[in-house]
Amino acid sequence: MIEGKSLVNPGKFLGAIGEYEKANVVIVGLPMDYTVSFKAGSRFGPASIRQASYGLECYSVYLDRRLEDKKYYDLGDLVLPYGNVEKSLDLISKTTENILKSGKKGIFLGGEHLVTYGILKEYLKKYGDNLVILHFDAHTDLREEFFGEPYSHATVMKRVWDIANGAKMYSFGIRSGEKEEFEFAKKNIHMFLYDVVEPLKKLINDIKDYPIYISLDIDVIDPAFAPGTGTPEPGGITIKEALEVIHILKDLNVVGMDLVEVSPSHDIAGITSILAAKIIRESILSFF
Amino acid sequence: MIEGKSLVNPGKFLGAIGEYEKANVVIVGLPMDYTVSFKAGSRFGPASIRQASYGLECYSVYLDRRLEDKKYYDLGDLVLPYGNVEKSLDLISKTTENILKSGKKGIFLGGEHLVTYGILKEYLKKYGDNLVILHFDAHTDLREEFFGEPYSHATVMKRVWDIANGAKMYSFGIRSGEKEEFEFAKKNIHMFLYDVVEPLKKLINDIKDYPIYISLDIDVIDPAFAPGTGTPEPGGITIKEALEVIHILKDLNVVGMDLVEVSPSHDIAGITSILAAKIIRESILSFF
Amino acid sequence: MIEGKSLVNPGKFLGAIGEYEKANVVIVGLPMDYTVSFKAGSRFGPASIRQASYGLECYSVYLDRRLEDKKYYDLGDLVLPYGNVEKSLDLISKTTENILKSGKKGIFLGGEHLVTYGILKEYLKKYGDNLVILHFDAHTDLREEFFGEPYSHATVMKRVWDIANGAKMYSFGIRSGEKEEFEFAKKNIHMFLYDVVEPLKKLINDIKDYPIYISLDIDVIDPAFAPGTGTPEPGGITIKEALEVIHILKDLNVVGMDLVEVSPSHDIAGITSILAAKIIRESILSFF
Amino acid sequence: MIEGKSLVNPGKFLGAIGEYEKANVVIVGLPMDYTVSFKAGSRFGPASIRQASYGLECYSVYLDRRLEDKKYYDLGDLVLPYGNVEKSLDLISKTTENILKSGKKGIFLGGEHLVTYGILKEYLKKYGDNLVILHFDAHTDLREEFFGEPYSHATVMKRVWDIANGAKMYSFGIRSGEKEEFEFAKKNIHMFLYDVVEPLKKLINDIKDYPIYISLDIDVIDPAFAPGTGTPEPGGITIKEALEVIHILKDLNVVGMDLVEVSPSHDIAGITSILAAKIIRESILSFF
Amino acid sequence: MIEGKSLVNPGKFLGAIGEYEKANVVIVGLPMDYTVSFKAGSRFGPASIRQASYGLECYSVYLDRRLEDKKYYDLGDLVLPYGNVEKSLDLISKTTENILKSGKKGIFLGGEHLVTYGILKEYLKKYGDNLVILHFDAHTDLREEFFGEPYSHATVMKRVWDIANGAKMYSFGIRSGEKEEFEFAKKNIHMFLYDVVEPLKKLINDIKDYPIYISLDIDVIDPAFAPGTGTPEPGGITIKEALEVIHILKDLNVVGMDLVEVSPSHDIAGITSILAAKIIRESILSFF
Amino acid sequence: MIEGKSLVNPGKFLGAIGEYEKANVVIVGLPMDYTVSFKAGSRFGPASIRQASYGLECYSVYLDRRLEDKKYYDLGDLVLPYGNVEKSLDLISKTTENILKSGKKGIFLGGEHLVTYGILKEYLKKYGDNLVILHFDAHTDLREEFFGEPYSHATVMKRVWDIANGAKMYSFGIRSGEKEEFEFAKKNIHMFLYDVVEPLKKLINDIKDYPIYISLDIDVIDPAFAPGTGTPEPGGITIKEALEVIHILKDLNVVGMDLVEVSPSHDIAGITSILAAKIIRESILSFF
Repeated sequence: MIEGKSLVNPGKFLGAIGEYEKANVVIVGLPMDYTVSFKAGSRFGPASIRQASYGLECYSVYLDRRLEDKKYYDLGDLVLPYGNVEKSLDLISKTTENILKSGKKGIFLGGEHLVTYGILKEYLKKYGDNLVILHFDAHTDLREEFFGEPYSHATVMKRVWDIANGAKMYSFGIRSGEKEEFEFAKKNIHMFLYDVVEPLKKLINDIKDYPIYISLDIDVIDPAFAPGTGTPEPGGITIKEALEVIHILKDLNVVGMDLVEVSPSHDIAGITSILAAKIIRESILSFF
Repeated sequence: MIEGKSLVNPGKFLGAIGEYEKANVVIVGLPMDYTVSFKAGSRFGPASIRQASYGLECYSVYLDRRLEDKKYYDLGDLVLPYGNVEKSLDLISKTTENILKSGKKGIFLGGEHLVTYGILKEYLKKYGDNLVILHFDAHTDLREEFFGEPYSHATVMKRVWDIANGAKMYSFGIRSGEKEEFEFAKKNIHMFLYDVVEPLKKLINDIKDYPIYISLDIDVIDPAFAPGTGTPEPGGITIKEALEVIHILKDLNVVGMDLVEVSPSHDIAGITSILAAKIIRESILSFF
Repeated sequence: MIEGKSLVNPGKFLGAIGEYEKANVVIVGLPMDYTVSFKAGSRFGPASIRQASYGLECYSVYLDRRLEDKKYYDLGDLVLPYGNVEKSLDLISKTTENILKSGKKGIFLGGEHLVTYGILKEYLKKYGDNLVILHFDAHTDLREEFFGEPYSHATVMKRVWDIANGAKMYSFGIRSGEKEEFEFAKKNIHMFLYDVVEPLKKLINDIKDYPIYISLDIDVIDPAFAPGTGTPEPGGITIKEALEVIHILKDLNVVGMDLVEVSPSHDIAGITSILAAKIIRESILSFF
Repeated sequence: MIEGKSLVNPGKFLGAIGEYEKANVVIVGLPMDYTVSFKAGSRFGPASIRQASYGLECYSVYLDRRLEDKKYYDLGDLVLPYGNVEKSLDLISKTTENILKSGKKGIFLGGEHLVTYGILKEYLKKYGDNLVILHFDAHTDLREEFFGEPYSHATVMKRVWDIANGAKMYSFGIRSGEKEEFEFAKKNIHMFLYDVVEPLKKLINDIKDYPIYISLDIDVIDPAFAPGTGTPEPGGITIKEALEVIHILKDLNVVGMDLVEVSPSHDIAGITSILAAKIIRESILSFF
Repeated sequence: MIEGKSLVNPGKFLGAIGEYEKANVVIVGLPMDYTVSFKAGSRFGPASIRQASYGLECYSVYLDRRLEDKKYYDLGDLVLPYGNVEKSLDLISKTTENILKSGKKGIFLGGEHLVTYGILKEYLKKYGDNLVILHFDAHTDLREEFFGEPYSHATVMKRVWDIANGAKMYSFGIRSGEKEEFEFAKKNIHMFLYDVVEPLKKLINDIKDYPIYISLDIDVIDPAFAPGTGTPEPGGITIKEALEVIHILKDLNVVGMDLVEVSPSHDIAGITSILAAKIIRESILSFF
Repeated sequence: MIEGKSLVNPGKFLGAIGEYEKANVVIVGLPMDYTVSFKAGSRFGPASIRQASYGLECYSVYLDRRLEDKKYYDLGDLVLPYGNVEKSLDLISKTTENILKSGKKGIFLGGEHLVTYGILKEYLKKYGDNLVILHFDAHTDLREEFFGEPYSHATVMKRVWDIANGAKMYSFGIRSGEKEEFEFAKKNIHMFLYDVVEPLKKLINDIKDYPIYISLDIDVIDPAFAPGTGTPEPGGITIKEALEVIHILKDLNVVGMDLVEVSPSHDIAGITSILAAKIIRESILSFF
């Protein structure tokens, strides 16, 4: 354990070996899942996704594109104060601000879903209500509070809505939540139950001229395909559908993306981390 | 190990915290899988399903219903004599009899599939040939005997047929068995291979006026979605199909149900137990 | 997930089936490990220890005593606000206060080690500098802060010292920490490196007339014997030594005890939970 | 470890208990994955598939056929020199030659995919450009060399092409490879991306009069269904599709088959081995 | 699943490849753990021990002896009627009888501990009260009945005592049981708590002229060393002590031996099966 | 997969963040275990040990020293041609040569034990028969060939002896091998069976003036403490003994060291990797 640093380097994502200055996309790990200092859940997600990426090819036959033709850089993982939600979100916001100021796009690897709040705070500052937020998840994440706490992975999309100021939010693949959350969703955001591909296809024309942010909770995918996550919810989409989502967004103006809730210590045979790494590769090739 | 008791309480299913008297549905665990007194297979199924249920919401967006509006109670697990099949089945029958006498409906958590025989003995006494038995399984379970034994998880549906006296039996999703079993099935029961949703939809009109009992062996679902079971059989249905089965039966007169063969020590990341807990929640909301 | 309750009941420890009022020892689970709401680490420790206890005998041949002759009760698990350290410690303190007020002794099942601070706050109020604190751990836990946070599982014994006001603290089995922590220890507390049995035997005469509180971090035991913990540290004591510690304290005036950092999702074949359950059984029989 | 033998017998596949002379199909295990002498990956594939086969029925309801009516024999596993690729391929070729000389057909259980080269060398000698090679895989396996090596599981289909001399090669389900491999494939072989069932159905008329060899890399199936393999690649086919492939080929002139890359130490709950055993059973019943 | 046979052959123990007739020691697997037909606990013990044996050397440096110089044969596993305790014990007795009649010695691989009763019934017939029974176990196994059943793995040594008629029984390493069992033991058998090596050394002179039978429950060894068992009991002996036991008995007149309760599906990294295989190898070399 | 590079950087060992030029100790990973390109055994050892190191403190209370006071650098992992033993050993030798030329000492993380041959070739060139080789292992590794191959993890110490030219070799903790190997050992090297601490203590005076190379196969430690290895051999030393070995060598002239055969995919709860990381930390602090 080395304190007093702002970033650690647990390897780099497949091929992310250029220079920071020349990159227009920046990968950063957000190992937030709090207060237990080792061996907890999604904290090790980013390191595990990077490790898994080494088993992948650099070429995607789906897109006929190669990582070698992309300029992206891997910053490593932020060093966050274990168990202090507020300071952690501040550090995440500050990092996001720096990435955005330098004109780059961010790929954020969680960590728990609450990190999305720290990220989107800055994206909303920059893009205002122009920003389109695409949220893929098994859960609504729209609670006002969770066990009394306003900042939680179960409230994150509600917290985002609080500061969204009219930026459009679309949720896909949702299949779990409390009644009140669904009622809130009906009035205030666009929510598509169970499915992701068909609703996204219909939407694509409406959003194609806007800057897009993607928040992808790995649990939108069925536990059979992605068991390595904290709150597996049976009945999710297949990995083929998840890949199709990435491919539908091909060449759109995606300005940022997070992939959260990968928890390698609950994974089996590493298949969730490999899947996450493949989604990131396809994302870089599809729209970054 | 505490002998000399008839029930133990390894927690209660999500929300099953009311009073026994006011409940019209009763959950009971049947930890039968015999002679090894600890750490065997499906014996720990009921406890594991309960534990997994705490991670679920009380609300189902599929049905727009909430557990808070249902009256159900969790009795805990029966204490059974390890390795004594006969006495165990007797105790299961006695418990079933008590539940039925008090006008309640039962949700039985296995345990191995043989428990269904002990349960249905009493249901058939009460409902006679009026009862419709819906059996979801990868295996026929129709052998006359198994390694010389007449009472076995591989013979259970044949033993049920022996006492069914004309009550209608429908098997769904079957994909494994001996030739003789399929020949018996052709003549004596209604068996649908591989699939569950389409045959059930066609059947629904014929059975909607009868009391229905559901016996759901978790291995009807593909091992990718439900690896935590004793005899995984590749080529099964998806969890989406399993949930659709529960939803097709919405508001029908289901008078009892078992969910058997969940074996947590063979599970991975707990996904089979979570799946089982979700099926039970949806069942309570759909037809109990 | 059921919010708005103060206690949940995930089963009861082996034989803890009497009445609260008649008990003089109370078991309570403190599922604190924060912000991830399901499937994290030590949060599931208490439930797993209870489940494992059912495989044990009620009789200890080591002590020739039986649980049937003891009066203890299992309150279940506290419901804590995920990710809010302060409120959680308050709730833990309040529960401890209630137990102490009613003249009972507490057995606290963690959860992370920080819970000990919430507990000892009340014990120190009641017993003042008369209290002897025996701390068994691989780690010093004496940092002033950890990644900037004053309240953490890595600072807990320093926080306890801050309020100990001269109550004697003894640490055993320590083999990991920063240099500054060991320097602090040398001046302010009694710390025994690596070993537990010999130093405790020498000490026993000095403490036998005082009220004793035991804080046992499961990682004092070597990871070979107790792999199911968040920060395994190779080179620990054996389970035989751990049991001997409990037996050395036979019939002393132990007024409270915690057993923390059991993390079942990192365990293998359940051996850490079984071990924890055995330690609790022996503790009840030895000095409660 | 017993050196100096050419075959070891780690059990026999379900029902493979007749005499070698009377069999017209021969199963042989090729435990090649090199230089680590114990506990590596696919080396234990054959033994694990055999063990898993005992849990299956001898009857297939898909085909209404029984193993009892087939004449097949299980030779056991070849003893190969760990880490010597060349000698191992020679031994595999020699064994294949013997099987073919005696007029029998071979079912080869890998081991890594490179074994296919040793096998097909002999099949191509016997059948010349008449042979139709059906290759099911997630990966192209068409590299010229891999980390400088010409003989590797990543180059195997290119090595086969080098000696195929016009024998037709069809690849199915491919979803991963380098750009150059796909360009090579376009010019020289028939490659179908992602899918297996539809392209095979269209092809069936063209190949039905030729001797067919099947090379099935288990990773063509999605990791959710077959996690126990060395290089899981998300986005594969389902087990239902894999079984349909076997059934489409019913009664065709299949003269040999390999099933490779099953790696039991990365499997979960044995589901990949059970799946492989079921594929072998269906293959014996469908076309051998 | 192949019914109607009396023995199946899931491989042979390391080097057990000679002829039955020439062997003076016979290995046989007793896969009894009942009613679940696949994937339960100790049923797969024998197959797993054999598989693990292939990773061992044939030479023991402890004893400076080689398997090549011993004549032993591996019969395979008995086919037992799942869930029928009585018939299974009969079959085990019959097999034992055959082995003894032919003047050979038996090595019996469990399966659950109850198999010992079926075996010793025949040994006691042959050797009468001359037989010395050495029992290594964590548990007394001396109950009169267990959950109402007289024949159980928890009653087995009591059942043996019932028919022992004065044959001497010695139990070693015991650390768990009910008070009544220890009281019975004090009066009727020789029981040594916790330890094995010292008591055995003291005893060796008294028993060296008698025929000896060894019943070794793998759980006598601590779960850290042997986690793959049904009822792990912390505080056991080390593997070094277990090996020393085998070596102390060098060249004594051991006429039979069982090694029971190895449960591979609860094992980790196969270490329990490897350990069991090593104990069997050392036993063959030490006293068979 | 990125070919055409000589080194990859899967993170750096705890605190190894200085400059290469200033370091006097260099860590390098040798991911050799061949032909399977992903997910095999010890190939992932180095990456896993580094990852585990982040959970350790920088301070050792055993030695009262801190990593901050040491100058060491982590080169990352060599990129080796899968399955080509000869080229790989050449690359390892070349890297070793470079390290030695620059006057630095090497810490080599395996990978399989055969890497030691490539390393020692260069050390023996530099130090000649002055070099003292301390070899800690469960296995002799002294075969002339293994399954016909002269270069193998089972022959490595014999290959080293072939080029040692009188440099002294000491083997410790050995408990497995063929008879011929032990006979060879008796005549040609110094071999201590089972134990490490006592023989090393006796030896220390004789070797204290020589340059020392340490080859530590993790399987010298018992599988209970270090299950994550390819050929676990029960009956090994404890982790306390392993640490004592490192501490006995304090401040001696150790010029190089390897730690081999850590196989994370067979590990449980990461305890073997954590253990390996702790041994490396203690080694840096003790004698580098």
